[in-house]
Amino acid sequence: MTIKISIMKEIKAFIRPNKVNKIIQHLKEEGFDNMTISMAEGTGKFQDDTAFVSQKFSITDSEIAKLEIVAKDADVDTITSLICEHGCTLNHGDGIIYVSDVEKAYRVKTGLENGE
Amino acid sequence: MTIKISIMKEIKAFIRPNKVNKIIQHLKEEGFDNMTISMAEGTGKFQDDTAFVSQKFSITDSEIAKLEIVAKDADVDTITSLICEHGCTLNHGDGIIYVSDVEKAYRVKTGLENGE
Amino acid sequence: MTIKISIMKEIKAFIRPNKVNKIIQHLKEEGFDNMTISMAEGTGKFQDDTAFVSQKFSITDSEIAKLEIVAKDADVDTITSLICEHGCTLNHGDGIIYVSDVEKAYRVKTGLENGE
Repeated sequence: MTIKISIMKEIKAFIRPNKVNKIIQHLKEEGFDNMTISMAEGTGKFQDDTAFVSQKFSITDSEIAKLEIVAKDADVDTITSLICEHGCTLNHGDGIIYVSDVEKAYRVKTGLENGE
Repeated sequence: MTIKISIMKEIKAFIRPNKVNKIIQHLKEEGFDNMTISMAEGTGKFQDDTAFVSQKFSITDSEIAKLEIVAKDADVDTITSLICEHGCTLNHGDGIIYVSDVEKAYRVKTGLENGE
Repeated sequence: MTIKISIMKEIKAFIRPNKVNKIIQHLKEEGFDNMTISMAEGTGKFQDDTAFVSQKFSITDSEIAKLEIVAKDADVDTITSLICEHGCTLNHGDGIIYVSDVEKAYRVKTGLENGE
């Protein structure tokens, strides 16, 4: 039996939509080019300063952007620090970042296992 | 070498959109306030009772809501039970819940590693 | 102390939106029926051949479809190979696939822990 040590990490950040451009700009300046953004809705403590009425669910109260980026373990601290530095307003609802293991990564173009 | 024991878990639930409000309401009543909801499209066994025609893909056949919540390991059973109890209709297509490890969590506001 | 060996995997593929139907069709032909698709926006190396102007963020430059599928460990290679085979154009921006561990899976309908 071998114990697998993951060296790729997935960073998932739930951030204010109006901070997305600034955060991505700074990530790109540091060489992190590959990421995706999608929109979600949040509840409770994510509540934004401005009122938000979901067209879909009566119970959500804020719009949240979800940033997903996969990176080398060694880059995780740099990336999370950049997101916090450029994503914070010091108000409630600035969001949360989660880091998880990625076991394998493949390029669709080549089919090769290669996280880069 | 140390073996890391994760104490934070990510719960990802694919549920019926018309069950979202009820499920979140019950989660909040139990003190779980932080979660996000987004919309996705599903195939096959997720098929809903009512017909669904995607404007984007011809091959998907149902709308699915995706609930994401990160919680302490000790709370996972409570949360998954609430989602099943209030999300089930006993028909096909009630959805699925997945639990995964989260290695670290940070607050964007403070930059501190702190899942709470 | 026991070391948990995960046997369920989450496959997350960021693929070209115009490849979604073809990829899902082939996955279904091989018996993989349960998956979800959602739309996101990407940056940089995901850049598509055709220009894309996001209505939401000035910094993203491409539309990406996100395919999520949970499968048995033994099926991961088959699934990722199918996605690469039917998702590639041999151009930049074909996308990336990530594989991660899933600790537990439940059916909402029954509440039972059962990844199938």
